[in-house]
Amino acid sequence: MALASKGYALQQRMYRKLWPKIVDDERDTFLRGIRPFVILGQLFGIFPLYGITGNDPDRYRLKWFSLRVVLNLTVIVTALVQTYYEYIRLKLIGINAKNVSGLIFFIDACLINVLFLNLATKWRSVAAKWEEVDETFNKPPYQLQGWSLRKRLCVTSFVLVFLAAVEHCLSIVNNVHNQLVEIHYCNWTVTNYFQHYALRRFANVYLNFPYHSLSAIFFTYISSALTIYWNYQDIFIIMISIGLATRFQQINNYLKILSDGVLIPAEDFWVRVRTNYVSVCELLDDVDRVISWTMLISCATNLYYICLQTLHVTKKLANTVEDAYYWYSLVFLIARTVIVFLSAAHIHDCAKKPLDIIMKIPNVGWCIELERFSTQLKSEKVALSGMGFFSLTRQLLFSMAGTIVTYELVMLKFDQESESKGNIPLCTPFVRF
Amino acid sequence: MALASKGYALQQRMYRKLWPKIVDDERDTFLRGIRPFVILGQLFGIFPLYGITGNDPDRYRLKWFSLRVVLNLTVIVTALVQTYYEYIRLKLIGINAKNVSGLIFFIDACLINVLFLNLATKWRSVAAKWEEVDETFNKPPYQLQGWSLRKRLCVTSFVLVFLAAVEHCLSIVNNVHNQLVEIHYCNWTVTNYFQHYALRRFANVYLNFPYHSLSAIFFTYISSALTIYWNYQDIFIIMISIGLATRFQQINNYLKILSDGVLIPAEDFWVRVRTNYVSVCELLDDVDRVISWTMLISCATNLYYICLQTLHVTKKLANTVEDAYYWYSLVFLIARTVIVFLSAAHIHDCAKKPLDIIMKIPNVGWCIELERFSTQLKSEKVALSGMGFFSLTRQLLFSMAGTIVTYELVMLKFDQESESKGNIPLCTPFVRF
Amino acid sequence: MALASKGYALQQRMYRKLWPKIVDDERDTFLRGIRPFVILGQLFGIFPLYGITGNDPDRYRLKWFSLRVVLNLTVIVTALVQTYYEYIRLKLIGINAKNVSGLIFFIDACLINVLFLNLATKWRSVAAKWEEVDETFNKPPYQLQGWSLRKRLCVTSFVLVFLAAVEHCLSIVNNVHNQLVEIHYCNWTVTNYFQHYALRRFANVYLNFPYHSLSAIFFTYISSALTIYWNYQDIFIIMISIGLATRFQQINNYLKILSDGVLIPAEDFWVRVRTNYVSVCELLDDVDRVISWTMLISCATNLYYICLQTLHVTKKLANTVEDAYYWYSLVFLIARTVIVFLSAAHIHDCAKKPLDIIMKIPNVGWCIELERFSTQLKSEKVALSGMGFFSLTRQLLFSMAGTIVTYELVMLKFDQESESKGNIPLCTPFVRF
Amino acid sequence: MALASKGYALQQRMYRKLWPKIVDDERDTFLRGIRPFVILGQLFGIFPLYGITGNDPDRYRLKWFSLRVVLNLTVIVTALVQTYYEYIRLKLIGINAKNVSGLIFFIDACLINVLFLNLATKWRSVAAKWEEVDETFNKPPYQLQGWSLRKRLCVTSFVLVFLAAVEHCLSIVNNVHNQLVEIHYCNWTVTNYFQHYALRRFANVYLNFPYHSLSAIFFTYISSALTIYWNYQDIFIIMISIGLATRFQQINNYLKILSDGVLIPAEDFWVRVRTNYVSVCELLDDVDRVISWTMLISCATNLYYICLQTLHVTKKLANTVEDAYYWYSLVFLIARTVIVFLSAAHIHDCAKKPLDIIMKIPNVGWCIELERFSTQLKSEKVALSGMGFFSLTRQLLFSMAGTIVTYELVMLKFDQESESKGNIPLCTPFVRF
Repeated sequence: MALASKGYALQQRMYRKLWPKIVDDERDTFLRGIRPFVILGQLFGIFPLYGITGNDPDRYRLKWFSLRVVLNLTVIVTALVQTYYEYIRLKLIGINAKNVSGLIFFIDACLINVLFLNLATKWRSVAAKWEEVDETFNKPPYQLQGWSLRKRLCVTSFVLVFLAAVEHCLSIVNNVHNQLVEIHYCNWTVTNYFQHYALRRFANVYLNFPYHSLSAIFFTYISSALTIYWNYQDIFIIMISIGLATRFQQINNYLKILSDGVLIPAEDFWVRVRTNYVSVCELLDDVDRVISWTMLISCATNLYYICLQTLHVTKKLANTVEDAYYWYSLVFLIARTVIVFLSAAHIHDCAKKPLDIIMKIPNVGWCIELERFSTQLKSEKVALSGMGFFSLTRQLLFSMAGTIVTYELVMLKFDQESESKGNIPLCTPFVRF
Repeated sequence: MALASKGYALQQRMYRKLWPKIVDDERDTFLRGIRPFVILGQLFGIFPLYGITGNDPDRYRLKWFSLRVVLNLTVIVTALVQTYYEYIRLKLIGINAKNVSGLIFFIDACLINVLFLNLATKWRSVAAKWEEVDETFNKPPYQLQGWSLRKRLCVTSFVLVFLAAVEHCLSIVNNVHNQLVEIHYCNWTVTNYFQHYALRRFANVYLNFPYHSLSAIFFTYISSALTIYWNYQDIFIIMISIGLATRFQQINNYLKILSDGVLIPAEDFWVRVRTNYVSVCELLDDVDRVISWTMLISCATNLYYICLQTLHVTKKLANTVEDAYYWYSLVFLIARTVIVFLSAAHIHDCAKKPLDIIMKIPNVGWCIELERFSTQLKSEKVALSGMGFFSLTRQLLFSMAGTIVTYELVMLKFDQESESKGNIPLCTPFVRF
Repeated sequence: MALASKGYALQQRMYRKLWPKIVDDERDTFLRGIRPFVILGQLFGIFPLYGITGNDPDRYRLKWFSLRVVLNLTVIVTALVQTYYEYIRLKLIGINAKNVSGLIFFIDACLINVLFLNLATKWRSVAAKWEEVDETFNKPPYQLQGWSLRKRLCVTSFVLVFLAAVEHCLSIVNNVHNQLVEIHYCNWTVTNYFQHYALRRFANVYLNFPYHSLSAIFFTYISSALTIYWNYQDIFIIMISIGLATRFQQINNYLKILSDGVLIPAEDFWVRVRTNYVSVCELLDDVDRVISWTMLISCATNLYYICLQTLHVTKKLANTVEDAYYWYSLVFLIARTVIVFLSAAHIHDCAKKPLDIIMKIPNVGWCIELERFSTQLKSEKVALSGMGFFSLTRQLLFSMAGTIVTYELVMLKFDQESESKGNIPLCTPFVRF
Repeated sequence: MALASKGYALQQRMYRKLWPKIVDDERDTFLRGIRPFVILGQLFGIFPLYGITGNDPDRYRLKWFSLRVVLNLTVIVTALVQTYYEYIRLKLIGINAKNVSGLIFFIDACLINVLFLNLATKWRSVAAKWEEVDETFNKPPYQLQGWSLRKRLCVTSFVLVFLAAVEHCLSIVNNVHNQLVEIHYCNWTVTNYFQHYALRRFANVYLNFPYHSLSAIFFTYISSALTIYWNYQDIFIIMISIGLATRFQQINNYLKILSDGVLIPAEDFWVRVRTNYVSVCELLDDVDRVISWTMLISCATNLYYICLQTLHVTKKLANTVEDAYYWYSLVFLIARTVIVFLSAAHIHDCAKKPLDIIMKIPNVGWCIELERFSTQLKSEKVALSGMGFFSLTRQLLFSMAGTIVTYELVMLKFDQESESKGNIPLCTPFVRF
């Protein structure tokens, strides 16, 4: 081993001479890949990590007296206040299985925000570890086929952010359209449409505070921010999954050269591969530890909203706009959930792949290191987990689908019965009801 | 190893000399076994693979400008049109849990057809691999006990096709019988019975287009084709399962000679066996990849229709013909589903069998190759899977049965309540309703 | 190995000299242990194995022209006739979830009988194998702690048969008591109480045939026989489980001597132990194959009846006798099912036990044979299975309990609604209704 | 090995010389840690183990003629009597899904008490084994990071006991408050409030016996005792889990020194570690055997009460005190259940941890002992189990949560319907109703 590791060190030094230091700004690391997304999030007051614009993960930290943290806390406090007023409002009009979702939305958004605030305090050590792993895999012999990691991350995140933005816009359009229908139906005369919109939309607040245009804009911003958190969380998990799966894929690509059985590598080859494999596993473990709560909340939220939304399937929708919004939002919700699961499960799939190649190594090349590698591959559960309660594999997605169907079948009945309670009739004036 | 492989190559060459080239037409390969079935399917516009009549899998391809593809696309387009009209019709008469099944039937058939169109583009590489494996197993030392593979495939497929044809005929008889009952009950005077049948049967189309005898025959053909797809898909999976399981069985038979413990084979024996075993596993992986969507759709379809059909159990059926058709179709549906599962699970059972023999190899014959083989047998999940969501084993069948019972128990209730909606009363004249 | 096996053979021969042939009649084999039970069963026409009274398993066979087979077929035919009449009766009075149980009872009994008829044709090879295993374990170094195997089997079977007999008697007492109550309530004058009992009890037959005392006695016998089958099946499985588990226990006891870590056995010791272990496993496999259907039917039957009986829990029972019968029968049913599962699961528990002792073997005594033994112990599922659909372990019992609770919760509702249908009012005279 | 073990013995002797015998009273053992808790329990008549105040586990035993056993039996007998009268009371007023919980409470408490009585007879051998393990782990090289085991146990148990006491007080306050409300509502004149409280609270007894102040105090004591049992059981399991997990943690801490890969230990190091690991595993097995029933009852009880309590969620509560009590008790119940599961699952998590470190041992330090250790770690299920029916891991908690949700969804419906039955109207006077 001593010799092997020496040889490896020598090899590394040689590589560095042959491939001169790449311009720092173009390195294909995970942290650079998620940077635009994180900065975008910070505009809406989430994950207020300081130092994200720099290239040194050691300088990442949570700086309590910075604009981003102030913004973050403002959002949280406002959301908590809204949660309270929503609770009061619900007590007045009666709670049913459907309108309670507004309250849960606020609580959920607060929780997500706090979890990312907490994550910001722990991110530095994970980032440092990740940078280290990325350095290993950005050098030969490893190579990346197809898109670079940064491209993968950026494209994925921006496509998803765009789709989420479309959904949010549709939601506002739907809201406005419904208000217009109501105005027409009730023969109301509205002078300031934005004021009317805000008064209706943030009814829970404006029943307790006087209206002001600035505050209305502020609440519109907050409401957008909260809507984004839920997507933010899912996209963050997807990007982490891509980041980790890519590294396992690189190992697989490297090993694939051996699958024709002509080349039989020596033991130190396997030492190197296993060492790298283990380092990605360790990174996965560290990441899993810091995002486990986020993972759990993400799964629970998606599960809850899918159950809730599919319950409406049988409901007769009022008009085409509502119809379009409902179907777009349902399909997007399910698609996003499936992507979260599949990308997380992809880590597991990639991490198990080397087994197929090892299976074909002939006896001549068999060594103790290979045996250890193969045993390790077989027995370990390399996957993201929700706090150890479940491992994110394809099987889980399958059984969750089964669970959702069961819940739906059971709930369909109740729903029909509790529909009469807790609805606000059309043309209700702006009074405390 | 170098020696062992050389020895093996020598042995192979010797075999070839001793057993002179068998007349090509009589080789017992999987591809020949499924040929009649595939050609039959192409008459109904499914799996339009070009070159299927030849013996060279390398010439298989999807030729876009060929009669079979044109036929295929005609069926798909017609089915899509019918799907659209069925959707319009359902919107008019109201949707319930039962009449929506017609719509699902059309969508399902289109999906199956497109999946097989897609499969045709990928089949060549799988076929080549399969031909290679078949060649290995059609030579000594491997031998096949009982029926040849081709016989197994042909008999199985034709028995199932026959049963499916019987079901389709029963369905038509039932339909005609119900119409006669209605004619009698409503005192209608029908001059052209076939026209009456077609107008009623393809109501969703003839409400929008004028009637013509040729078009009626065409729609009868399309309707038969669509009904067959569903069976086609299941039978295709069953044949693939038989093809793979047979190869594992041959390995087992070969090993069984050792189970008395007298003969203790050398390491190169195990090298050969494991190499062949791995090659079948690789074939299984390739096949699994190309048919995974088909697998998923097949399971989902069967699950859905079993749930749907068993819901009718409590319903009082109108007459004996309806009764006979209902029970035949239910029993055939369940039997076919069980056969799909059991034959797929059989691959898994056969692939695990060598363990029992290895267990009994005495210590003297124990070698590193055997250890690797035994570890591999223990840890790997050699089975067809539905896109990695589930592995097709007997346990899965068991838990699916449990799930179906649960769903049935929960759904029985709803069904009774939604029955009033969406039924067409007897004697409804031929108007747009 | 050659040496080791030679040494072992020598040792065996020595043993035989030292322990002179035990009087044949006192050998502690499984086949002798179940003999009284099997003979008892044959009095009621089940498992008509010829040669059971002899000591040579090679003479076991199914002799078609023997009294027991004639008896067996008589029972089956009568049961089938009753099944038919019961079906007719149910069609007349209407089927609900509860009264269909009578029909299922008949079908079930026929099925069990046919399965045991089939088992009789296959029992010889299993018996021979079992005899062989028993011979190994009835000799040193293996010893049995506590009761002998025969005593275990006899005591268990007779206690269970006794409890089943009590249940059957209670059932008759309950039936008679209910008739007396009815007679009193309706002011009927009954001259021949036995005739009245038979006419009511076998209503489905006597509605189609004239009454005769002899036939009434015959039907009483048949009805007792059918009731016993269900118990017979469960007890048979329990006895098989005890027989197999005992052998694994003997291996454990033998190994326990090593658990203090002082004695370190040589490799040939492990060769012997593993060989014996494998032979019991093979026996288990053979037994599992022949009784798999019985196993499946037993589980399904018990599951169905537990669900059915617990549904009645909420029902107000008419009188104390009915109450006593209901609770006795429910408790006995659950207890018997649990015993079947636990005794079958016990095989699995015992077969896994050697692992604990092997874990403690110090490194000095470690050898390749031990490694193989330990790997085998870890990876294999040594347990009875229901046709490979499930393995009978404690976990299964747990999940079945969960399933039953779910089914009960769902079904409780339906039950209340379908209760009105299909009940025969009191004082219905003896006419075709 | 002989050399290795000799070397180890020598090392041990050296340690003992270097670290002179610590004053006995300060040893950090599990038995000392649970002592205050056990003594507290004995004041309420549970786990009447004699010799608990001494330091010698060999003197632990169940002394039938001692005050604690007498107290214990008094409580059991009283509880049985109350069970009987509660049963009578329920038969009179009608049983529904909610008021049956009172009866189940009594039965449950009796069962718990009897199980701990039984545990007392078996505790000695477990205690001796535990003392032995503790001795090993209280010496170098093992060290404990953070709090000592005794501190952990004491703090945990007293926090939980305190919270349980608060719940019990709240329950009394709630009860008294409801009575005051009733008194006010019905315009009753109550002279002796304690008497009134006791007559209402222990209605099932005082309907059959005359009132006496002393007996009222006695029943108050008994009622407190029974309430405590349920908590006692859970806290006991939590403490056992902490005790076992701590030892596995110490092994992990010890191994963590190696995780940097610089130090490569020799084989005898691994022999020592594995020996200690196995000894903790054996202790776990022993403990699991004696508390398996307690474990099962604890899980079942918590599951039942969570289902029951969450059913009330939709119920409109009468006043703030009831509200506070309801939510405190529900949250405490869920929290306690989760803690039981998580702490038991923590054993499993800790026991699997060494794998991560072993994974990183370089090839040079690889030895047969390490291979055995690693295989053992991978394959064994080191966890507390409920009689082998389930292993307490995080996955179990997850699937139990899913089960509870399903049950709740199904039960919600029944509950609404059965609510009318079995309620005692306000102002019912003190008569036999």
